[in-house]
Amino acid sequence: MDHNQARQWLATAVEEAKAGLAEGGIPIGAALYGADGTLLGRGHNLRVQDGDPSMHAETSAFRNAGRQRSYKGTTMVTTLSPCWYCSGLVRQFGISRVIVGESETFHGGHDWLAEHGVEIIKLDDPECVRMMKDFIAAKPELWNEDIGE
Amino acid sequence: MDHNQARQWLATAVEEAKAGLAEGGIPIGAALYGADGTLLGRGHNLRVQDGDPSMHAETSAFRNAGRQRSYKGTTMVTTLSPCWYCSGLVRQFGISRVIVGESETFHGGHDWLAEHGVEIIKLDDPECVRMMKDFIAAKPELWNEDIGE
Repeated sequence: MDHNQARQWLATAVEEAKAGLAEGGIPIGAALYGADGTLLGRGHNLRVQDGDPSMHAETSAFRNAGRQRSYKGTTMVTTLSPCWYCSGLVRQFGISRVIVGESETFHGGHDWLAEHGVEIIKLDDPECVRMMKDFIAAKPELWNEDIGE
Repeated sequence: MDHNQARQWLATAVEEAKAGLAEGGIPIGAALYGADGTLLGRGHNLRVQDGDPSMHAETSAFRNAGRQRSYKGTTMVTTLSPCWYCSGLVRQFGISRVIVGESETFHGGHDWLAEHGVEIIKLDDPECVRMMKDFIAAKPELWNEDIGE
């Protein structure tokens, strides 16, 4: 897919990340797009807001998309490289493509996904990098909790 | 750990699976135990009940355990071999041990977890096998939906 389209979808994930930050949460956002480009679901990390460690940005977007018979052709766009938990989600459900806002502050499982046939588009987005760097500097313990470190 | 203890913990996961089945759901249950043997959280698959595809048994138990600073020494016990999504959860958060009720009807990511240092105890429990075989025979489409096939 072309990077202009990818950047447009990333904007949805960035909006989610900012909404999470405004709620006092961890600024990571994601969205799941259908094969036809329809927005199926969007969400952000809810560890702080809901006290729910299972709601990473990607799992939140996946949940909000509801039950789907197939994920063939779908795209998960996320502001940050997906951790193993979220990478496992992508692999298990056969999500076809992942757009990664940035993988500089955290390098998750996107190489593993590429090895298993998932299309990976890395955007190296400066706004995503800045958002995470600021957050990690401000709340390092919360960040470590969110990735189990 | 000894298998008697593992079987005792598996009984909690089996109770959860049966509760899910009684609710009309997918009969997979799980529980997360602390390093000291305390039950931190238990849960079951909620795809049907909550229309929530993100709530596999393991993620449900993990959510119900709430926020934890560390998963070092914890044990996830599950009636069925963990799929990639749930295996990714175990790896990312550093859960130390997984007790697998059965891996005959579904072979998930437990070998991968073992390669990455997670202790795996396979119990080959006949009740767990029967529960899944009966379910898959009765509702094959629902089962395929739950594993993205």
